[in-house]
Amino acid sequence: MRDIGVGLLGLGVVGSEVAHVLLDRAERLSEQVGASVALRRVLVRDPNKPRPHPFPQELLTTNPDDIFDDPSTDIVIELVGGEQPALDFMRRAISANKHVVTANKEVIAKNGYRLLSLAAQHSVDLRYEASVCSGIPVLSPLQQDLAANEISTIRAIVNGTTNFILTKMAKEDLPYEDALRLAQELGYAEPDPANDVEGIDALYKLAILASLGFHTPVRPSDVYREGITSLDPKDFTYAHELGYAVKLLAIARQRGDALEARVHPALTPLDNQLATVDGVFNAVQIEGDLVGTLVFYGRGAGGGPTSSTVVADVLTVARHIAMGGIIRPRMELNRRIPVMPMADIMTRYYFRLSVADQPGVLAQIGRVLGEHEVSISAVIQKELDPEAQTAQVVILTHPSREHSVQSAVAELEALPLINRVSALIRVEH
Amino acid sequence: MRDIGVGLLGLGVVGSEVAHVLLDRAERLSEQVGASVALRRVLVRDPNKPRPHPFPQELLTTNPDDIFDDPSTDIVIELVGGEQPALDFMRRAISANKHVVTANKEVIAKNGYRLLSLAAQHSVDLRYEASVCSGIPVLSPLQQDLAANEISTIRAIVNGTTNFILTKMAKEDLPYEDALRLAQELGYAEPDPANDVEGIDALYKLAILASLGFHTPVRPSDVYREGITSLDPKDFTYAHELGYAVKLLAIARQRGDALEARVHPALTPLDNQLATVDGVFNAVQIEGDLVGTLVFYGRGAGGGPTSSTVVADVLTVARHIAMGGIIRPRMELNRRIPVMPMADIMTRYYFRLSVADQPGVLAQIGRVLGEHEVSISAVIQKELDPEAQTAQVVILTHPSREHSVQSAVAELEALPLINRVSALIRVEH
Repeated sequence: MRDIGVGLLGLGVVGSEVAHVLLDRAERLSEQVGASVALRRVLVRDPNKPRPHPFPQELLTTNPDDIFDDPSTDIVIELVGGEQPALDFMRRAISANKHVVTANKEVIAKNGYRLLSLAAQHSVDLRYEASVCSGIPVLSPLQQDLAANEISTIRAIVNGTTNFILTKMAKEDLPYEDALRLAQELGYAEPDPANDVEGIDALYKLAILASLGFHTPVRPSDVYREGITSLDPKDFTYAHELGYAVKLLAIARQRGDALEARVHPALTPLDNQLATVDGVFNAVQIEGDLVGTLVFYGRGAGGGPTSSTVVADVLTVARHIAMGGIIRPRMELNRRIPVMPMADIMTRYYFRLSVADQPGVLAQIGRVLGEHEVSISAVIQKELDPEAQTAQVVILTHPSREHSVQSAVAELEALPLINRVSALIRVEH
Repeated sequence: MRDIGVGLLGLGVVGSEVAHVLLDRAERLSEQVGASVALRRVLVRDPNKPRPHPFPQELLTTNPDDIFDDPSTDIVIELVGGEQPALDFMRRAISANKHVVTANKEVIAKNGYRLLSLAAQHSVDLRYEASVCSGIPVLSPLQQDLAANEISTIRAIVNGTTNFILTKMAKEDLPYEDALRLAQELGYAEPDPANDVEGIDALYKLAILASLGFHTPVRPSDVYREGITSLDPKDFTYAHELGYAVKLLAIARQRGDALEARVHPALTPLDNQLATVDGVFNAVQIEGDLVGTLVFYGRGAGGGPTSSTVVADVLTVARHIAMGGIIRPRMELNRRIPVMPMADIMTRYYFRLSVADQPGVLAQIGRVLGEHEVSISAVIQKELDPEAQTAQVVILTHPSREHSVQSAVAELEALPLINRVSALIRVEH
């Protein structure tokens, strides 16, 4: 049979690695597919930019039409990143009856459902395994290997940058700003780190995971989001004493007829495998009714891991082409489950208050929490500061409603004996 | 399109669960496939045996021909277990142009390559994801998601029974016999536990993992095997002091032009994720040149997890049938890499000697090891027994050749001042 042609959009860190793997391992990859897989053209902005791998200059083009209008290109790999022009590129590729492989979480989280519909109309595949936790196979297991299960919970550490920062804060007692600076120096965080540290990247990934896990379109705007920028290393110490690590978790959970979908720092029990995920590593924990608890662990970013997955997706599509099957993209989002408002979430809470060192403070706190039906599981008084006459009080609650906790916190902050509520972190069991 | 017919061989713990899922979730599963998936007949030995789930009696048959000769049966699920008649059943099903899904590690480890060839001749699929770590998707990721990688190492805890026993020995200081009895009482170990505790089950699984990971047929007889029956809780304590857990590991590793393939107890560094896998859980750690280290963790046995995977394999085949593709089973064992003899393995070793409490013993040990080019990384003297005038000496070596270590141990045991070498455990970094 004829060669299977591949066009590549973007030759950055990941694109270069993908091109290198496709060229360097062409023979072995073709053996696996049962047909030759050939990289035809690569779209770049600047053909003269130096590349990390030696690259045949004649493959480069600055004109997207060279890829979309080429009848010998069967598969288009989108590694431009960001929303536009990546989304337009994918639409054009699909409309030209080309299969698409992408690592673009933003486009898939925001437009995946529409793109999959378009792909179905054109009988082409759209694969995006690398969009979530790059190197770790998790979307394919969710869709294929766990297909017989009803999924109850997905809990995940999906952002390596924040996990690196949190690990440094926990293990080396660094303040957030110092840990961030270290991450930036090591190239783990961008000069503008907002996308990672504000949880936006994690939110896109959770929207994709939750959509596939619960067979319902979960939009990024449905997901509650809270970043890590206001965390204090003090709370890592107190949390550890209570038996928890602090992690930025992406959580999706079936609750009756609705879904929880939220990204925020969370106290994670030390005996949960997620608590042991350190540094830039990612892990996804999935609970299914047949399979029980599964954990997938590995590198969630970088040229190597991402190219591993992107090339695997290309090989899967190529194999389907070689087998002559009719391609039908997986689009089993055939349920409509609403995401519940954050105010209705029930979970446990950790909070820390700076209070005046005077009698009656704990009684006041207890009264306010009780009035809001927030019941206390543990209270620890910490660090009396004799000069300022203040103490730190750490409280762990029983499962309580988010709305009640927020109201109680607002009321506590208004009390004269309470200086401020310095930390409010949800607990994830 | 017409229904996709499924025949089931065996209605034990897993078979009952698979049948229950296929019947109970028929509508949802069919939605996912895009065609109706119907359980047609179930082969049993005794149709009148009580079953854990209510079961339509008219589906039961004691005659295998009712399944193999039925033209409306497209997929045969083999859950009879053991080598025969399971192997014959699979051959008959494939020869009748039926796709086969199985959880049978013994048949796949011993005959997988030939069965896959037969399946290729008949253009049918043969899927066996559940044969290794049942509920954990690992064969499909190895073959599909990691296809672009060169795998360097596979290290795994693939037997829940032995991991349960080792966990009890480590955490509760139980002798092996007591931990085994507990596992038997809880139903985790068979009345005759040899298959698990001697490492036979793990060996089959490693042969399958290594074959797929390194694209070469690894036969069960190629794999070195050592069980857990002679382990002493003492060594768990000493190992922990040195920074290690004791686990039954299945290890396959590319070493130059050859493969290591071995199953044996191993000292596993406490900061390796495998060291934290406790109880009946399984985990597979894979290192690829692009992806780095991946870990897959979950339940490796039981009706729920196994049925999760068996039904998923059925759905994948059904989807391929519904898509109208030509099925070609994955059989990329196109390399021929020899497994190196165990005597040539290079690794670190832990051993414990009971020695006479007399001057010069350590010097003698050092001399013997030195003469065999086994260099010592750490020596710890333990537990002087004043009455017996003996001491325990624990030695950790630098990487050494298995052959040299075994010769040194034999020579040490012949020394008058050394009572015996009580433990010899390999270290896996």
